Amino acid sequence: MIIILKNQAPEQKTKVLRNWLEQQNVEIHASTGEFQTIWGLVGDTSKIDTDLIEGLEIVEGIRRISEPYKQANRKFHPDDTVITVGDGIKIGGGNFQFFAGPCSIESEEQIITVAKAVKAAGATILRGGAFKPRTSPYAFQGMRNEGLGLLLEAKKETGMPIVTEIMDASHIDLFEDVDIIQVGARNMQNFELLKELGKLDKPIFLKRGLSATYQELLMSAEYIMSEGNPNVILCERGIRTFETATRNTLDLAAVPMLKEKTHLPVVIDPSHAAGIARLVKPMSFAAAACGADGLMIEVHNDPSKALCDGPQALRPEEFAEVVKGVEEIRKVIA
Amino acid sequence: MIIILKNQAPEQKTKVLRNWLEQQNVEIHASTGEFQTIWGLVGDTSKIDTDLIEGLEIVEGIRRISEPYKQANRKFHPDDTVITVGDGIKIGGGNFQFFAGPCSIESEEQIITVAKAVKAAGATILRGGAFKPRTSPYAFQGMRNEGLGLLLEAKKETGMPIVTEIMDASHIDLFEDVDIIQVGARNMQNFELLKELGKLDKPIFLKRGLSATYQELLMSAEYIMSEGNPNVILCERGIRTFETATRNTLDLAAVPMLKEKTHLPVVIDPSHAAGIARLVKPMSFAAAACGADGLMIEVHNDPSKALCDGPQALRPEEFAEVVKGVEEIRKVIA
Amino acid sequence: MIIILKNQAPEQKTKVLRNWLEQQNVEIHASTGEFQTIWGLVGDTSKIDTDLIEGLEIVEGIRRISEPYKQANRKFHPDDTVITVGDGIKIGGGNFQFFAGPCSIESEEQIITVAKAVKAAGATILRGGAFKPRTSPYAFQGMRNEGLGLLLEAKKETGMPIVTEIMDASHIDLFEDVDIIQVGARNMQNFELLKELGKLDKPIFLKRGLSATYQELLMSAEYIMSEGNPNVILCERGIRTFETATRNTLDLAAVPMLKEKTHLPVVIDPSHAAGIARLVKPMSFAAAACGADGLMIEVHNDPSKALCDGPQALRPEEFAEVVKGVEEIRKVIA
Amino acid sequence: MIIILKNQAPEQKTKVLRNWLEQQNVEIHASTGEFQTIWGLVGDTSKIDTDLIEGLEIVEGIRRISEPYKQANRKFHPDDTVITVGDGIKIGGGNFQFFAGPCSIESEEQIITVAKAVKAAGATILRGGAFKPRTSPYAFQGMRNEGLGLLLEAKKETGMPIVTEIMDASHIDLFEDVDIIQVGARNMQNFELLKELGKLDKPIFLKRGLSATYQELLMSAEYIMSEGNPNVILCERGIRTFETATRNTLDLAAVPMLKEKTHLPVVIDPSHAAGIARLVKPMSFAAAACGADGLMIEVHNDPSKALCDGPQALRPEEFAEVVKGVEEIRKVIA
Repeated sequence: MIIILKNQAPEQKTKVLRNWLEQQNVEIHASTGEFQTIWGLVGDTSKIDTDLIEGLEIVEGIRRISEPYKQANRKFHPDDTVITVGDGIKIGGGNFQFFAGPCSIESEEQIITVAKAVKAAGATILRGGAFKPRTSPYAFQGMRNEGLGLLLEAKKETGMPIVTEIMDASHIDLFEDVDIIQVGARNMQNFELLKELGKLDKPIFLKRGLSATYQELLMSAEYIMSEGNPNVILCERGIRTFETATRNTLDLAAVPMLKEKTHLPVVIDPSHAAGIARLVKPMSFAAAACGADGLMIEVHNDPSKALCDGPQALRPEEFAEVVKGVEEIRKVIA
Repeated sequence: MIIILKNQAPEQKTKVLRNWLEQQNVEIHASTGEFQTIWGLVGDTSKIDTDLIEGLEIVEGIRRISEPYKQANRKFHPDDTVITVGDGIKIGGGNFQFFAGPCSIESEEQIITVAKAVKAAGATILRGGAFKPRTSPYAFQGMRNEGLGLLLEAKKETGMPIVTEIMDASHIDLFEDVDIIQVGARNMQNFELLKELGKLDKPIFLKRGLSATYQELLMSAEYIMSEGNPNVILCERGIRTFETATRNTLDLAAVPMLKEKTHLPVVIDPSHAAGIARLVKPMSFAAAACGADGLMIEVHNDPSKALCDGPQALRPEEFAEVVKGVEEIRKVIA
Repeated sequence: MIIILKNQAPEQKTKVLRNWLEQQNVEIHASTGEFQTIWGLVGDTSKIDTDLIEGLEIVEGIRRISEPYKQANRKFHPDDTVITVGDGIKIGGGNFQFFAGPCSIESEEQIITVAKAVKAAGATILRGGAFKPRTSPYAFQGMRNEGLGLLLEAKKETGMPIVTEIMDASHIDLFEDVDIIQVGARNMQNFELLKELGKLDKPIFLKRGLSATYQELLMSAEYIMSEGNPNVILCERGIRTFETATRNTLDLAAVPMLKEKTHLPVVIDPSHAAGIARLVKPMSFAAAACGADGLMIEVHNDPSKALCDGPQALRPEEFAEVVKGVEEIRKVIA
Repeated sequence: MIIILKNQAPEQKTKVLRNWLEQQNVEIHASTGEFQTIWGLVGDTSKIDTDLIEGLEIVEGIRRISEPYKQANRKFHPDDTVITVGDGIKIGGGNFQFFAGPCSIESEEQIITVAKAVKAAGATILRGGAFKPRTSPYAFQGMRNEGLGLLLEAKKETGMPIVTEIMDASHIDLFEDVDIIQVGARNMQNFELLKELGKLDKPIFLKRGLSATYQELLMSAEYIMSEGNPNVILCERGIRTFETATRNTLDLAAVPMLKEKTHLPVVIDPSHAAGIARLVKPMSFAAAACGADGLMIEVHNDPSKALCDGPQALRPEEFAEVVKGVEEIRKVIA
């Protein structure tokens, strides 16, 4: 960490700061220029509150040099994290998984039909929404507990491990038999929830917030990991920009960038990012081509009951095409 | 709501859609052009899921015309909402309130000292953070329950109503004697929390999310209101943009725009928006000049213990200057 | 186009608007609801100024339904535009081209060495900057006219067609022997320049502005096309977001979305988007996987003279790997 | 400037970089930590190309500490720039000016009528668009040369100095009798134009680009100033965000922030920012309250010919109210 002091910082105040920093066990290397003095801090600066220092009158600015995340940092943990679910299904470390299923669980028949269809098409993990975060209180909020029960049925029926979203820490008990718990983009900084999930040993599927930076995503992973749960899967699902033709802007550079910064697996969700089913295939291919560890894709059941299908969902046979193409692309980049 | 159908939409599919819409009790006015057919929907379209329709293959696009929020909508509730707290302190409806206090509660002495200082300087409502949402798990997370106790002490000591942030629905019981419960920007779309707060009759101070639109903020207010709690105060506290010289970009046009769209009070938080104490005064003046219903301002206690002060906090005497200037500006625009 | 009128719009004013619209040769289909009246305009609305109408007191809002671009619009020109340069090199229509070369032209030796190297590695069109737009007036502004001369030498030497950036309409004469003229992101809305380029018959390589929408990019293409030059190549090169770990955020969904909206070729520039050389390969693969018509890639000459190389430039042998991988990926998606 | 070297940077490569930096006349203060080495550069680093260094394999990152703009920097020029136009009208240095007039010049009668009306209402400088940058090639492009002639008529008639927009360097000769030349947001980084304007001694009114940072705006001012023209007026006119209810988001914190960073005057354009006439008054008051040096406001002539008025234009009597309120607010903050 670098602290830039103002030119005429009174000596007494700089002394107070120097003492305080030394109490935090960091060493100060000062370098005095014509217009400012620079302090380079050496030691573990991850616990130093940069906002606090930046607010001091004597400080012109501050620059972090090392990352504030430790457990998620590849620098300190060079090997890929590999998470195993179900019957030896590995996420991360060069493996690739397809998380597929309907947006919302609607009935036993629906979830079991889709589960079988996506399994046949190549999906390895079943997704399905029971608790649904919706912008409008008047929109369908999911089947909630009941939906969770149906998803567990589908797990039993197909043998696939399941991933589904949690919306409140008070629901954790309901997720006991869920294989992977998803934290949605809108809850990426629900810190109380993250801390509670950190006390489990179940894998957590953490989606990037709509306007979160890579570093903030990694700090949210750090919340989970610092409580003792190392099993975090990161997911890029589009960020908010001024472009309105797509629902969000899928930031695929997140794949190589995050994999450089962290050892955690990185999965892409092309369905939510674009919000348009016909973009799922090209963006899935692109995600595979730049090195993603998996794809989360919405697949619906019955093309004839069109009105119940999300705008971003594929038919099972379209999903099968995605799986096939992705596998070929992965051979090219191997 | 306007639905734009594709040119060659098969008649059978358009019939399915037409029937479904009519079941939702909306009337369809069709207008057929050379390159597309347009359906104008007349009736209550607030419960119609636009995402769902937009996903249909026969649909080229959809445009909402009426707002999806009803209870928060000024169209249906033309009179300003006025919320009363404490001993007749009115928020909204042409009144102006100063919410002031420290970023975090640190000790009994600190919160009581600051409370008295801000009261003397003109504050009408005391703010103070007990539960602190922090990007890093290693940063100070607030005094939590204990801090809440100290804030209640300060309320007793000064007679000021208090506002403080909640981070999880499971904490609601602890907030029984809190006058106004704050929902932070990161929890603006924590829908489970919003629903629980909607079951109270306590005023809720709802901060705009970092990348939320006006409509999303109003939909989050609608979550609270649709559960039965009409006492919502909106707060603009800066949005995320590409500008990095300020922490966030304070969007003051939110004041006149929100007041046009809704009858709820609109308060500005200039402290968090800029993240720089020396911007609080000019931005407070600007907020008053464009018609805000109040200001939430961080004030710290002891300028000599600088390291404990947030970067965005004013000294009590600086806060007093803000109050004085704001009052004069309000006379000008009255 | 849909015009939403306010509820109590005085009849006299709506009559003025109605007359004016009819003079513009559009037909009005009115539909009157409880809270607003909606006018659907049928006819050619591309010349109607939406800003103007939106400003009227009687108007609540306006929604465009058909796109304001005509010549660039795939609806009216369903077949892909195919542009031929040099010795039968085709851009668009299922062909794929590699535009490669150094960021800046620095010397005859450099440009000719790089040109030969990229040709050997599979590049089909040579790029090189003579006029360089730089944020700082103190940064190197390119070799300008002299650089252009050296690029023409390289063209002669290698037989490759060349693309290079123009910064001002007054320089057009200098570009007579240039095969493709590039308009940089910062000049995407330099409308005087676009109009002048529209009078040529040379292909124009038009980069998306840093915060431009797809529609604005297409309107800038329309500026060129409406003056008579149909040969426009679109290029996505990253947009500005709040993420700072990469220089810009490459928006790859632009490929399938633009190709749906327009018949013009779409090329990706991964070098500028990320600003980081090690992202060029994965992002190039991703661009190919989602259907781009080409890649523009910076390649430098001499890895030992590292200081002269841009941060986003590849070595020729790295570029050769990109070409090889892209070709294999294109076979997969074919 | 701080350079952070990678941990295992080979000594030979760091030596090359060290030598190169020393040739640029900067001194290196090294500080070696466990995970990285930090070089603090002392001296004039404004001409060092950070992109270039950031691209080196041995470099992990780079942080600028001093600003790359010199002539626009308040650090080196602490006194406010005061620009005088017309008959002693001063811009900057505690003075406040109203730039008012129609969006577009439409006829002699119109411009002269509006000019007289705004002068009577308190405007000190007349604005009017002759060359109009429009997103669509089919929209009205302004009366161009002819409009400029009419504006000069209005200047003669009223004695007011005039400001109008230039769109291409080749038009400079036409602007000989214009008092202040405006560079629009879309041309903020038209560097060839900026350089040509730098060779004049006429004041330049430089608008912030739609997604430009403060630093980029100041670097564009520096382009003009470094060519010898110190008379630059900065203008904030809204930036692009994801909010769509307003055309752009007016960033009023730009006023105190820019005035801290630079000695140049800072003017606010509330008309273009919001794109909504009824926001002009509150946002003008807010701009005055936070210390702006002036306002640029669109005023139209004839409320009955509503269709010719921009959506963001005030009637003269509304403008008069803005002037009156702003003057009172300025007394409060004085």
